[in-house]
Amino acid sequence: MTDTETQRRDGPLAGVRVVDLTHMLAGPYSTWLLGALGADVIKIERPGKGDFTRVIAPFSDDESIYFMSVNRNKRSLTLNLKEEKGREILKRIVASSDVLVENNRAGAMDRLGLGYADLKAVNEKLIYASISGFGQDGPYRHRPCFDVVAQAMSGMMSITGEPGGQPNRVGASIGDIGSSLFAAIGVLSALQKRNSTGEGSFIDVAMLDCQLALMENAIARYLNAGDVPRALGSRHPLIAPFQSFPTADKPIAVCVDTNEQWERMCGAMGLEHLLTDPRFLTGSQRNANHAELEPLLIPVFATRPRDEWLDLFDEADVPSSPINSVPDALLDPQVVHRNMVVEVPAGSGKRFAAVPIHMQGAPLAAEAPAPKLGEHTADILAELGFSPADVEALRRDAVV
Amino acid sequence: MTDTETQRRDGPLAGVRVVDLTHMLAGPYSTWLLGALGADVIKIERPGKGDFTRVIAPFSDDESIYFMSVNRNKRSLTLNLKEEKGREILKRIVASSDVLVENNRAGAMDRLGLGYADLKAVNEKLIYASISGFGQDGPYRHRPCFDVVAQAMSGMMSITGEPGGQPNRVGASIGDIGSSLFAAIGVLSALQKRNSTGEGSFIDVAMLDCQLALMENAIARYLNAGDVPRALGSRHPLIAPFQSFPTADKPIAVCVDTNEQWERMCGAMGLEHLLTDPRFLTGSQRNANHAELEPLLIPVFATRPRDEWLDLFDEADVPSSPINSVPDALLDPQVVHRNMVVEVPAGSGKRFAAVPIHMQGAPLAAEAPAPKLGEHTADILAELGFSPADVEALRRDAVV
Repeated sequence: MTDTETQRRDGPLAGVRVVDLTHMLAGPYSTWLLGALGADVIKIERPGKGDFTRVIAPFSDDESIYFMSVNRNKRSLTLNLKEEKGREILKRIVASSDVLVENNRAGAMDRLGLGYADLKAVNEKLIYASISGFGQDGPYRHRPCFDVVAQAMSGMMSITGEPGGQPNRVGASIGDIGSSLFAAIGVLSALQKRNSTGEGSFIDVAMLDCQLALMENAIARYLNAGDVPRALGSRHPLIAPFQSFPTADKPIAVCVDTNEQWERMCGAMGLEHLLTDPRFLTGSQRNANHAELEPLLIPVFATRPRDEWLDLFDEADVPSSPINSVPDALLDPQVVHRNMVVEVPAGSGKRFAAVPIHMQGAPLAAEAPAPKLGEHTADILAELGFSPADVEALRRDAVV
Repeated sequence: MTDTETQRRDGPLAGVRVVDLTHMLAGPYSTWLLGALGADVIKIERPGKGDFTRVIAPFSDDESIYFMSVNRNKRSLTLNLKEEKGREILKRIVASSDVLVENNRAGAMDRLGLGYADLKAVNEKLIYASISGFGQDGPYRHRPCFDVVAQAMSGMMSITGEPGGQPNRVGASIGDIGSSLFAAIGVLSALQKRNSTGEGSFIDVAMLDCQLALMENAIARYLNAGDVPRALGSRHPLIAPFQSFPTADKPIAVCVDTNEQWERMCGAMGLEHLLTDPRFLTGSQRNANHAELEPLLIPVFATRPRDEWLDLFDEADVPSSPINSVPDALLDPQVVHRNMVVEVPAGSGKRFAAVPIHMQGAPLAAEAPAPKLGEHTADILAELGFSPADVEALRRDAVV
């Protein structure tokens, strides 16, 4: 029943077609990744306007950097879904697609006649994934949600920041991107199910739910041990020392879990006498007595600059790191070695964080730049069998 | 070539068998999720000791809450991989499995004779995923890594915290869990590839790389517009107002992106005069002039308690939220409605964050509790064809 050619991209998802009805971040990040892994992603946008993020500053060559970063590896088709003709075209695309991802508010797709039941009638094997703030059911299902709302409501902000200070938003948009990743996992699991049973699926992923899943340890500790999780600055709630320390110049992050690491850390710091201190014999003791341990370490860290400590810990095989700024991080030899910055398209000077899934022996295809609004409208309509005159008429009627 | 029965669990990954050579968090969280989605996950642990996290406090009925939370939906087999007999048993399991996930230090599996090349010789279609701190290549490949190291090195800590304050660790272990989610996406993509081409895959996912991918916007802004991302407290770098505000009692998170939302927010706050203020006409202007906008909003927020603002914003359809503690979040009616806390096993009183992927019409199987060390050793060996006497001999020889 395929009446269009899927654009063949290399990668493990080659041959999978994704209809992308997403905007902002939670949806687009998910479909960016599916596209990077080889899927043919057709992004459907409102004629004349497109994704809300196309107007978010800053810009590079008049294109929003926000938009460009998370809409790579997609083709853009403009389509007015409020018009019957627009919905008919969408259904033709769905008929030859594997997956649909949308992140409109719960109920919006049903009101357009494009909900799961409607589109399952067109393609019984469709995998239909809805990403929303709060999910497809429950008292908040119709509420709007942005990243900081999901971070605030879930408790994520309450455990991020200085002890006793203000609750802080996680600096990356984990409220959105958490749901992007779980949605991708849902879609790919459903593909596996379809490969084994032939059945499609409806997947409901909420930003709020995903924050809670990321906070599994905080939640398990509270529910099963009664510990109320709190903001601890740079410190881990259960392991010590596992935090940043000031040094003679810049701060350093250090962490130690096993007794072997503790021995090596004390050796590197000239603190062998702590190894027989009854307060610090096990990991649990070191954490329980953290308030007594930290003041013993701070003055020692102050005796050397950070880079000397990094060398000592590297030699002693103790996990440690500088607290890098973003520019520092991107100059780090390991980051450079791993090609974690990618220029898209090659030679353009436009650079982004790369896909962090390395497939050895089968590298992913080069990433494609984010599309201009409606850049692939004519191509995709031609693939669907529309003549140039049809396309012209659709444009005149503001359907595309 | 299956010589063991895969334990059938319900869910989209039913029939997929995962050999789990992971410990701590980055690996176990990934295989927790695969198990929750229906895979048969066989966790291989060191005889007598098991996963390092089995001894991390706090405990419930003598079991580590840390361990219990991320090792649900797995069976535990003890196996001494330093013994030839232990490696032979592992190879027999691999022969009938689909996926192997490990998070040992780069090179460790090769040294055991259990690297990808070794196990591909046993099962050509194997999907072999390695999760590590820094990846399988590059100058840091042999270095140890824990969550705060990945958060520090990537720059994540530098953008999390109060402006001008200390860099803060994200309160959830996003350094680990970021890599867990990307690894699951890699594994599931490779399953799709195997379904279409018959080929196995080797997947290399690094905690550091994954942090950078989560920071895509910060990186894209720096590389393409020269903005050095900084910690901004609760504020979004590109959208305003999008942050927490004090009120007459407790703080509230509010965010506004589109002009329509801005109009509704100003209406709800009695600030209609701001709608014609030339500094705040567009989203870009509101963000660029944030330093002038915020002081106009703060005194207005101070006039009412938080819950009144929440009601007003709910009515006005403006995204807003309380800044919940973890206990608050778990009592939230939406969280309760979505069943985001799950008791495992039912009736035990042990409660955890649930899987945030809702499959409508095909709910996932009930989650199974984390296994005791070696709980399924005899069962799994019997499935492999070992007699009770064989098992006894293997125990005597400390192989299992």
